Amino acid sequence: MDSALLNPFVGSALNVLKVMAHVDATPGRPEIKEGNVAWGDVSGLIGLAGQGVNGNMIISFDRACILEIVSKMLMEQFLEINDEVIDAVGELTNMICGGTKQALAEQGYQISMATPIMMTGKDIRLSQLSKGPRISIPFSTAAGQFVVEANIERTK
Amino acid sequence: MDSALLNPFVGSALNVLKVMAHVDATPGRPEIKEGNVAWGDVSGLIGLAGQGVNGNMIISFDRACILEIVSKMLMEQFLEINDEVIDAVGELTNMICGGTKQALAEQGYQISMATPIMMTGKDIRLSQLSKGPRISIPFSTAAGQFVVEANIERTK
Repeated sequence: MDSALLNPFVGSALNVLKVMAHVDATPGRPEIKEGNVAWGDVSGLIGLAGQGVNGNMIISFDRACILEIVSKMLMEQFLEINDEVIDAVGELTNMICGGTKQALAEQGYQISMATPIMMTGKDIRLSQLSKGPRISIPFSTAAGQFVVEANIERTK
Repeated sequence: MDSALLNPFVGSALNVLKVMAHVDATPGRPEIKEGNVAWGDVSGLIGLAGQGVNGNMIISFDRACILEIVSKMLMEQFLEINDEVIDAVGELTNMICGGTKQALAEQGYQISMATPIMMTGKDIRLSQLSKGPRISIPFSTAAGQFVVEANIERTK
């Protein structure tokens, strides 16, 4: 997965959090992930499929980070990861993926988005079948951390 | 989600398990799922996106069921959910979704598949944003149970 495919995820995540929640996030160094990965407290997963590329995106937040983001986004203080917070994770996943889709379209990749699945639980391990490298991008905010794992492969 | 969209998932799951693992499964009554859902010991998730429809499929196995299926599939006895078993869940997810895609194409729905994500953990709760009903189909085998949750919506 080359950086031309990676950058749209970073840009879209920063933009959506800024616009929707007035939260500034700082991206860290992207890492290549191997093996299974244990994740944060709540995650959004969404599939991407299209002409010539397919893959998926996972965005995973720690508890403090997502509570701050959703509290600012919905202008109401949330102290626990309840159904409203989980739905907001789904909306954020949709929006970040939508922005990425638009940016990839400008590179000539026409992709369609599946519907998001949101996940909470303890000691969750996620793994992927894809042969290609999966890229994990950590982000920090004033309140906490989140991670975007992007995995897109050219199929042609 | 109407039964014309649902039946391909059932048929494909039965066919893939029969062909790949010589396992006979019996589908139970499909149920409409509301709210969050706690799942089995290992799950495969895959996004579907296309012209006029999008959604996703989740297939979730209990421990005894998947160990029996993968042991028969790979002709080697597996006693724990290790990386090989998890990869096999990904392959099964791909194959069941692939068969469904083919059957939906015969109904005129052109969908593309994202890449599968496999998930293990305790007390995992999955939820979805979609407004439409999500259909859960339980299956029983001699060794244990699995569930297919299919969620496809027409977008046009």
